[in-house]
Amino acid sequence: MKKKVVTLGEILLRLSPPGNQRFINSTSFEVNYGGAEINVAVDLANLGVDTRLVTKAPANELGDAALRHAKSYGVDTSFVARGGEKIGTYFLETGFSVRSSKVLYDRKYSAFSTVSKDEFDIDAIFEGVSLFHVSGITLAVSPEALELAELFMKTAKEKGITVSFDFNYRSKMWSLKDASIGIERVLKYVDIAFAGYLDFINILGIPMGEGYIGENILGCYKTLYPKVMEKYNFKYIVSSVRNVVSASKNLYSGFVFNGKDIEISKEYEVDIIDRVGSGDAFTSGFLYAFLADSTDNYKIEFAAASAVLKHTIPGDTNIVTKDEVEKLFKGIGYDVGR
Amino acid sequence: MKKKVVTLGEILLRLSPPGNQRFINSTSFEVNYGGAEINVAVDLANLGVDTRLVTKAPANELGDAALRHAKSYGVDTSFVARGGEKIGTYFLETGFSVRSSKVLYDRKYSAFSTVSKDEFDIDAIFEGVSLFHVSGITLAVSPEALELAELFMKTAKEKGITVSFDFNYRSKMWSLKDASIGIERVLKYVDIAFAGYLDFINILGIPMGEGYIGENILGCYKTLYPKVMEKYNFKYIVSSVRNVVSASKNLYSGFVFNGKDIEISKEYEVDIIDRVGSGDAFTSGFLYAFLADSTDNYKIEFAAASAVLKHTIPGDTNIVTKDEVEKLFKGIGYDVGR
Amino acid sequence: MKKKVVTLGEILLRLSPPGNQRFINSTSFEVNYGGAEINVAVDLANLGVDTRLVTKAPANELGDAALRHAKSYGVDTSFVARGGEKIGTYFLETGFSVRSSKVLYDRKYSAFSTVSKDEFDIDAIFEGVSLFHVSGITLAVSPEALELAELFMKTAKEKGITVSFDFNYRSKMWSLKDASIGIERVLKYVDIAFAGYLDFINILGIPMGEGYIGENILGCYKTLYPKVMEKYNFKYIVSSVRNVVSASKNLYSGFVFNGKDIEISKEYEVDIIDRVGSGDAFTSGFLYAFLADSTDNYKIEFAAASAVLKHTIPGDTNIVTKDEVEKLFKGIGYDVGR
Amino acid sequence: MKKKVVTLGEILLRLSPPGNQRFINSTSFEVNYGGAEINVAVDLANLGVDTRLVTKAPANELGDAALRHAKSYGVDTSFVARGGEKIGTYFLETGFSVRSSKVLYDRKYSAFSTVSKDEFDIDAIFEGVSLFHVSGITLAVSPEALELAELFMKTAKEKGITVSFDFNYRSKMWSLKDASIGIERVLKYVDIAFAGYLDFINILGIPMGEGYIGENILGCYKTLYPKVMEKYNFKYIVSSVRNVVSASKNLYSGFVFNGKDIEISKEYEVDIIDRVGSGDAFTSGFLYAFLADSTDNYKIEFAAASAVLKHTIPGDTNIVTKDEVEKLFKGIGYDVGR
Amino acid sequence: MKKKVVTLGEILLRLSPPGNQRFINSTSFEVNYGGAEINVAVDLANLGVDTRLVTKAPANELGDAALRHAKSYGVDTSFVARGGEKIGTYFLETGFSVRSSKVLYDRKYSAFSTVSKDEFDIDAIFEGVSLFHVSGITLAVSPEALELAELFMKTAKEKGITVSFDFNYRSKMWSLKDASIGIERVLKYVDIAFAGYLDFINILGIPMGEGYIGENILGCYKTLYPKVMEKYNFKYIVSSVRNVVSASKNLYSGFVFNGKDIEISKEYEVDIIDRVGSGDAFTSGFLYAFLADSTDNYKIEFAAASAVLKHTIPGDTNIVTKDEVEKLFKGIGYDVGR
Amino acid sequence: MKKKVVTLGEILLRLSPPGNQRFINSTSFEVNYGGAEINVAVDLANLGVDTRLVTKAPANELGDAALRHAKSYGVDTSFVARGGEKIGTYFLETGFSVRSSKVLYDRKYSAFSTVSKDEFDIDAIFEGVSLFHVSGITLAVSPEALELAELFMKTAKEKGITVSFDFNYRSKMWSLKDASIGIERVLKYVDIAFAGYLDFINILGIPMGEGYIGENILGCYKTLYPKVMEKYNFKYIVSSVRNVVSASKNLYSGFVFNGKDIEISKEYEVDIIDRVGSGDAFTSGFLYAFLADSTDNYKIEFAAASAVLKHTIPGDTNIVTKDEVEKLFKGIGYDVGR
Repeated sequence: MKKKVVTLGEILLRLSPPGNQRFINSTSFEVNYGGAEINVAVDLANLGVDTRLVTKAPANELGDAALRHAKSYGVDTSFVARGGEKIGTYFLETGFSVRSSKVLYDRKYSAFSTVSKDEFDIDAIFEGVSLFHVSGITLAVSPEALELAELFMKTAKEKGITVSFDFNYRSKMWSLKDASIGIERVLKYVDIAFAGYLDFINILGIPMGEGYIGENILGCYKTLYPKVMEKYNFKYIVSSVRNVVSASKNLYSGFVFNGKDIEISKEYEVDIIDRVGSGDAFTSGFLYAFLADSTDNYKIEFAAASAVLKHTIPGDTNIVTKDEVEKLFKGIGYDVGR
Repeated sequence: MKKKVVTLGEILLRLSPPGNQRFINSTSFEVNYGGAEINVAVDLANLGVDTRLVTKAPANELGDAALRHAKSYGVDTSFVARGGEKIGTYFLETGFSVRSSKVLYDRKYSAFSTVSKDEFDIDAIFEGVSLFHVSGITLAVSPEALELAELFMKTAKEKGITVSFDFNYRSKMWSLKDASIGIERVLKYVDIAFAGYLDFINILGIPMGEGYIGENILGCYKTLYPKVMEKYNFKYIVSSVRNVVSASKNLYSGFVFNGKDIEISKEYEVDIIDRVGSGDAFTSGFLYAFLADSTDNYKIEFAAASAVLKHTIPGDTNIVTKDEVEKLFKGIGYDVGR
Repeated sequence: MKKKVVTLGEILLRLSPPGNQRFINSTSFEVNYGGAEINVAVDLANLGVDTRLVTKAPANELGDAALRHAKSYGVDTSFVARGGEKIGTYFLETGFSVRSSKVLYDRKYSAFSTVSKDEFDIDAIFEGVSLFHVSGITLAVSPEALELAELFMKTAKEKGITVSFDFNYRSKMWSLKDASIGIERVLKYVDIAFAGYLDFINILGIPMGEGYIGENILGCYKTLYPKVMEKYNFKYIVSSVRNVVSASKNLYSGFVFNGKDIEISKEYEVDIIDRVGSGDAFTSGFLYAFLADSTDNYKIEFAAASAVLKHTIPGDTNIVTKDEVEKLFKGIGYDVGR
Repeated sequence: MKKKVVTLGEILLRLSPPGNQRFINSTSFEVNYGGAEINVAVDLANLGVDTRLVTKAPANELGDAALRHAKSYGVDTSFVARGGEKIGTYFLETGFSVRSSKVLYDRKYSAFSTVSKDEFDIDAIFEGVSLFHVSGITLAVSPEALELAELFMKTAKEKGITVSFDFNYRSKMWSLKDASIGIERVLKYVDIAFAGYLDFINILGIPMGEGYIGENILGCYKTLYPKVMEKYNFKYIVSSVRNVVSASKNLYSGFVFNGKDIEISKEYEVDIIDRVGSGDAFTSGFLYAFLADSTDNYKIEFAAASAVLKHTIPGDTNIVTKDEVEKLFKGIGYDVGR
Repeated sequence: MKKKVVTLGEILLRLSPPGNQRFINSTSFEVNYGGAEINVAVDLANLGVDTRLVTKAPANELGDAALRHAKSYGVDTSFVARGGEKIGTYFLETGFSVRSSKVLYDRKYSAFSTVSKDEFDIDAIFEGVSLFHVSGITLAVSPEALELAELFMKTAKEKGITVSFDFNYRSKMWSLKDASIGIERVLKYVDIAFAGYLDFINILGIPMGEGYIGENILGCYKTLYPKVMEKYNFKYIVSSVRNVVSASKNLYSGFVFNGKDIEISKEYEVDIIDRVGSGDAFTSGFLYAFLADSTDNYKIEFAAASAVLKHTIPGDTNIVTKDEVEKLFKGIGYDVGR
Repeated sequence: MKKKVVTLGEILLRLSPPGNQRFINSTSFEVNYGGAEINVAVDLANLGVDTRLVTKAPANELGDAALRHAKSYGVDTSFVARGGEKIGTYFLETGFSVRSSKVLYDRKYSAFSTVSKDEFDIDAIFEGVSLFHVSGITLAVSPEALELAELFMKTAKEKGITVSFDFNYRSKMWSLKDASIGIERVLKYVDIAFAGYLDFINILGIPMGEGYIGENILGCYKTLYPKVMEKYNFKYIVSSVRNVVSASKNLYSGFVFNGKDIEISKEYEVDIIDRVGSGDAFTSGFLYAFLADSTDNYKIEFAAASAVLKHTIPGDTNIVTKDEVEKLFKGIGYDVGR
């Protein structure tokens, strides 16, 4: 694919007890590298999109290892800044059945939190680029990161580059109020918004609207989404719908609203190996189909099937082929392995 | 929590093929340490109860390792006797789906089977103690162990300490007849009895009683349990109800009868990582709530949710927080790990 | 059991990423040895049948390791030829839930593909033997392997040895047309045919027949199977029926047609650890019951339960006891492991 | 042993690539918990000394896990403060042969760095205590930690408790100048000083002295050590001597100066599995022998043999028996394992 | 090779912490199966000798697994008795450098200890057999095992079968006095005796003899060994000489005395992965060369090189080729692996 | 570094039993990807050189995984051809002490063996390139590979690109005679030749020359190397000298001859984790220093230290920093990891 993509965000070291172990008595942690925008970059590169990552990694062996992950799938890391004290880290205990997952963050004071615009040649970074993606997590990292993200979004907008934004609200990183302030600063640059209806209500303060009947989650989009579109003038609002049966079984689907029509994907029942990165797989699936100029229906089916597959793959990134994603949403069935 | 608990029982080395492997071609065994009363001690200590373990461990490195397990969660092992030939051992092959689990015992001639009252300072052990717990497994280990358990129960009773007893019938350890004789010897000291209706019928020989209609397992408690209460004068009869869908999926609930009312917990569908110790987690959950002077409804909900969580945790012990247990039975939902 | 069995086929090295990992970033592969006829030999030997394997393994350490696998369960490997360039190899990525399994073959130019009748003393191999088994995979390996299989089948038939044949069609190994030619060459020697209705239609070109109503898969056997029997005069046609719910959950049953009556097994819902070798476990289960002169109902119940258990066991072979298989189809329930 | 010991320091999470892997492509890290004073506490508790740990651990699962490590060997953690943002962490890549080890610290902003005297009941902590141990690492963690350490040392001195101090200079934590200022603040309270001659020269600024002939490292103690003693009036100066042959082979010995005589231990050639904690094993070995009122010769032999054994044991702590240490320095030879 | 061998002894389950871990905090144990005479049987079978194992294994999955080990290398297990309570077990902590190995036995009350002659058809077992091997360990297991061993040795002698005996004294199994009584009972049947000079002195009570000068260990064989030969009339006395540099480095050689001449092997410096079974590899190496009618020099060189290689191979058994052994003692050098 | 490098060769899947296990009973194989010229490319890219790999990988998941390895260290794989049947594979059993390593090749019929010049745009590949490297292994793969290598070398020479060639003779791949013919075809294009004196004597048939005295291996270079230079007019002949003490200990050094002077590196004693790729690390070390226009002494010291470090790093590639290499040959000593 000819179109180039840039993403901006923090690269994280993820440490997780193997198998179904708990933190308390685990004698080893599995090592993965990820982060919302890094995952989108890796997922897209894996699907053949020319992708460039903008981040800041510490100038030590763990920074090297994190970037090795991105490079291994073909992401261009030549514009990554190096420096700062430490790699952002999180510890993940993966839940099972009735037992929830647990996450401990250790990302304060990270290399990326000290990011500055002087570390990047933005014009060179955006040369030949079609789409820029960033998420609310980057905005939440630090004031410096928020400022940088805003600059990238503004510049992209000015250069006619499509701007994609995933709300990705994390209550452990900022309050609803801070998120509201931070996100409002950047929404004017956004073309494609990945968000759920609660994000609009809780963060943007847009009321659900009259006429909504609560029994069907999709009903709300007839009252709420048009109001969002009116205010922010997005090209697309894209949402996933997750029904949590247990920590290891979810129902999953997605829909896209283009201001006029809603396209709704199939719903899947998925057993979960690792759900981290499934939201990013949803985003990267949608953006891949968007860049390929497919129909809205194809876009949302590709996004949902991509996200669903991610749940079955260890690690943060969704290493699947276009063919695997299509086979899934087209219902072609299972290869039995012989 | 200020209340102190003492448990008495055998500490066992558990060896199990990793993952879903079978004994026949496994090249390693995972090592855990447990045993019914040890599990109750560790579970309670983990929840913050001051707990003391009475057992006998061999004076070798495996005895050290077993006690290290108990100490690591804060159990007081200062009254543990050391000596004997070997650590009691069992080999566990964990079943999956249509394939059953398998257990091989190698606990005959163990250190604990040679236990004697001369090895323990019972008065010191019981100083400041509120509750003593033991199970039928200890009674079945050897005549020496039965005698010791009886002495501990009798002494506890005399000192006004609540006596908790789990029938825990194991057909590989003793016959129904021997169990009947052994258990009858100690029931007079028991305040809280953990047992199922089959225990009462098969071991104590109490008939189900007229008026019972078999379609609902709870029905039997209207005819059978009052007769048990009349005879043994327990404060509580506590029972779990397990519906085995497959080796890796069970339905699980519990109920408690206080001589007057029955409180019944929610029923859970649970996928199983490791069901060993779930009965002990039920017991420890109940005792924790009992020591906290909670309502009977809270007691049984805490017990059942505690047991259900155990199925998702590798090893014999239920390393959960009070908060996790409460969230489960209050239906607060799943933390998705971010 | 006194009856001796011979099987002929390629022994393969199987390499698979551990757990639920994908090929792309796996840092180790689990090692197993198998192959359709090797699996049948090992499964039967494990059940106590005197079994002899005929194959050709490379004269190197991997050939030694492959034969060690067969010997470890008691298979007689004294007639195995050694030589050729390499061991046939396949790479298996095990699917999970919505994600399919993947297989990559690297078996062309294998030791077994260069097999020749001069390497075997057929009369000695068949001494005292009751049953000979081979599958379509062996026929597909190479012209040399097809010729050898035909010679073994013809010789067995002449010696009054029961000939068992599993169609085992593999589209990655030969076309339907080549399979049709190859399989037709040998069917005249076959007593017991393991095949599905699609094999008869697609490979043998026998039409479904009138009167079939498609809603029930078993219906087809009233119209199709009698025609097959008429043409080939098998003693038994044995088929499994697999309903793929997901890559990790299947519904599974089997039936046998003896030319007159159909016996249908129970249907099982099975969670899957490793489905490779389940077809061979079905075959070996049937043959075991056949050699034991059991009823047709017992044969198919044993076959289906045997196959179902295989799905829960890592590796290609079905290391189960007769007791485990019987307990499953008799519905005796689960040993809870204590 | 009746004598009680208190140590004060930071508990750290250690993460290290398994085997001989490097950071860059390691897919898991082994988990250990340690820290200089924690190691001394665990080593002493393991040898049977009643030991109490004073530290501050975060109130999360990693804090729990770290304390579980200390408790598992019998260390009393009942006075540990909980709170702060994160557990201090370090990443260790273990060298081999010509390849050096690498350490990355991520301990800034740790829970312990925010320690305050208000979090501890010092009088209760020191009740019945004979010896207090701390090292220069604690002083270097933060001004708050230095202040707390000084307070503990001063209080111990006032209460007649022996004060043990290990210089443990870490250039990654503070400069020589800062170390000089910090260490000078506390030396007046010290009875037993663990330090090398370079510590005295570089940190305390005491010149080597005339008459030293450089060919023998022990020679320097005739000129330098008496001057140190004169100034600081220690009871003992204890030093280890390490000759680094390669990252996996060292020569190791120790000596102790009591102001009058020097006792020198045997020199050992040791192959290295894990040298982290060997200095702490030297310290704990000496203190164990000191508490047992042994001869100075025994003290230093026990210290050196203890340290040497540590190099062969994975993890930070020296889990050995008194018998193993004595057998080593008495040259009793190797048990061949049968 | 046409000659058949029978060995008699206990098959053991060996459990050992992986890598260089200690028992105390190991979370898994590696599983191996072995035992002195089982090792000799497996080693010989691996070299192509037709070998039959006589033992008694419990009729459970661990018994199956143990026999699977023997079968996997081609040992005939068709005469193995099944029954008894448990498999003999030992726990091995492998030493490293200055740290000794540790062994804990749990073999009392094992299946083999209850062995009886009624369980074996001795005539059938010895049909066509050239050599019978047993060691002192079998004699030490139980009075029943000693009686059985004596019967096998006596019968072998009567049938003209060469009797090989390895003293294999284990102080954890019997006292020197009991060993003396037990071994004296059987020495009259022995043709080939594997023993060291201390065995003759300490167990048989034969004095070193005059004229020996202690500086060279081989010197003693001029005074002691002729006296042994005179009394017991062995065909060969075979001894290994081990110089323990550390737990992971030994010097190793061997020599054989045929009553007239001594042949001495090369001495090797060997780094140790796993020294268990090296004595058995020495024995099997000698017996292999003996059965091949080689020269005495070849016999002892083959024995020593075989034993030396064993030290580098994990597990109890010496899975090497004749070619590898010969290359080692012929000094052909190292294949660099490309 | 501005200078660009191209290497041409086969990318291989390497499978090796973990730890010190043998093939026969290993239940998993570690996965690495390498190959002589791939290793040089990865090593150089890791040191910061802009490096491009030319190879052909199968269009399947294992081909993807192999390229992921190269990409992860920054190698440009955009010119890699995809297709062919399978990935070249080799199985490596790593020796230890007295036990040799073993290699089994399964690379015949590999994707790379079917390489053709039509699959590559040579002019584009060489754009801006300073140095081209290939080894004798590529020449030995197949006639097609030899032809391609010759074309690349010829083209490079014509374009003024430095041509580097490593003899890398592999007796398992071609005979000395075939190697002689193949290598002679390309030597006229070579500027830098990596070869040992035996390569010149055995492959090129150049006699040692008079005046050589065999006691010092370097002596031969006074008689032999000038003759080689005279005939082939290389810029440099670079040789390593390896003294194999055991499979896990080597002495290693290198020297370079520039037609006039010999520069000899230090000699190192190195303990070996994984010696595969050490020759490539020697080559890449030399080329790195060559591209940096360093002195000949620096070049050979960097090459030797680079190779020596490789022995301590698992896998085929030498992931070290310039700083680590320099510290080693400058003798700066060991970082003790704190």
